[in-house]
Amino acid sequence: MDASSAEDLKRSIREIPDWPRKGILFYDVTTLLKQGSYFQQAIDALMEPYKQSRVELVLGIEARGFIFAPTVAYALEAGFVPVRKPGKLPAATFDESYELEYGTDRLEIHRDAIRPGQRVLIVDDLIATGGTARATAALAEKMGAEVVGLSFAVELTALKGREKLGKYNVHSVLKY
Amino acid sequence: MDASSAEDLKRSIREIPDWPRKGILFYDVTTLLKQGSYFQQAIDALMEPYKQSRVELVLGIEARGFIFAPTVAYALEAGFVPVRKPGKLPAATFDESYELEYGTDRLEIHRDAIRPGQRVLIVDDLIATGGTARATAALAEKMGAEVVGLSFAVELTALKGREKLGKYNVHSVLKY
Repeated sequence: MDASSAEDLKRSIREIPDWPRKGILFYDVTTLLKQGSYFQQAIDALMEPYKQSRVELVLGIEARGFIFAPTVAYALEAGFVPVRKPGKLPAATFDESYELEYGTDRLEIHRDAIRPGQRVLIVDDLIATGGTARATAALAEKMGAEVVGLSFAVELTALKGREKLGKYNVHSVLKY
Repeated sequence: MDASSAEDLKRSIREIPDWPRKGILFYDVTTLLKQGSYFQQAIDALMEPYKQSRVELVLGIEARGFIFAPTVAYALEAGFVPVRKPGKLPAATFDESYELEYGTDRLEIHRDAIRPGQRVLIVDDLIATGGTARATAALAEKMGAEVVGLSFAVELTALKGREKLGKYNVHSVLKY
């Protein structure tokens, strides 16, 4: 994506101070998504580095990740696998914990979601500290997947999430 | 979609008895989604009746609806608008209540998500009793949208959700 298109996309994202709590500046992508041409550009930019990577599965993380990841899967002609919060998936799961500011949380994936050797791409709306992305990559690798890369619509560079994902190919469309 | 493709898709859906609680037969679409060719077919079948309908926005309902609706938006070159559970959207919202088996729940949409006169398609994974779909259509109409139709991956015909949506164009890919 060229610099001027990226600027257009950035301008389409609404910034909301003090959400979900005081001191956090929230990047609201709903104002981008509702404009079809911007949504197309964002999806195309998310998948661009991975078009020739023979991606078989795209993994997306509940709930906002479900907006981007299945669409990238469709555009790459790959399958989609949901990674969800505990207790939401109906069949047998593997799980992985990750750290929050206070305490920990968990993500789950169906045990039959990935076959060993499958080439997977992880797509999410946002990379902040990188905790959920790293947990998702760890789940995929435990199941024998080859993690082709991780792609994010928005990267908050000051939070250094990319460092947690040092061994992976990491791509983001819009950097703040 | 021809009958034999529909049968293939149906066979790819996993049926889970007593989920999320005793007596409910749950149709788990994750086993369809992970197969790229089936996912493509499902998306294409969801949008098929609306390809010429000049859809400007596709509305999707949290969380499983987020899997199908944005993908249909991308394929139709439309924008995507999330309809979420209370308290999840960061800017000013309109809301609409709907009935559950016991009690009521609410859905929210951003006030600036739809401009009067915009042509919207509502896409969800499943139509059961039709409560959330009707609430979503009501929200869209309150905002001045023209509801072009509602499209569902799975329809549980015995629950007669379609009757609640009598005045709309309703389409489903797989009927049970």
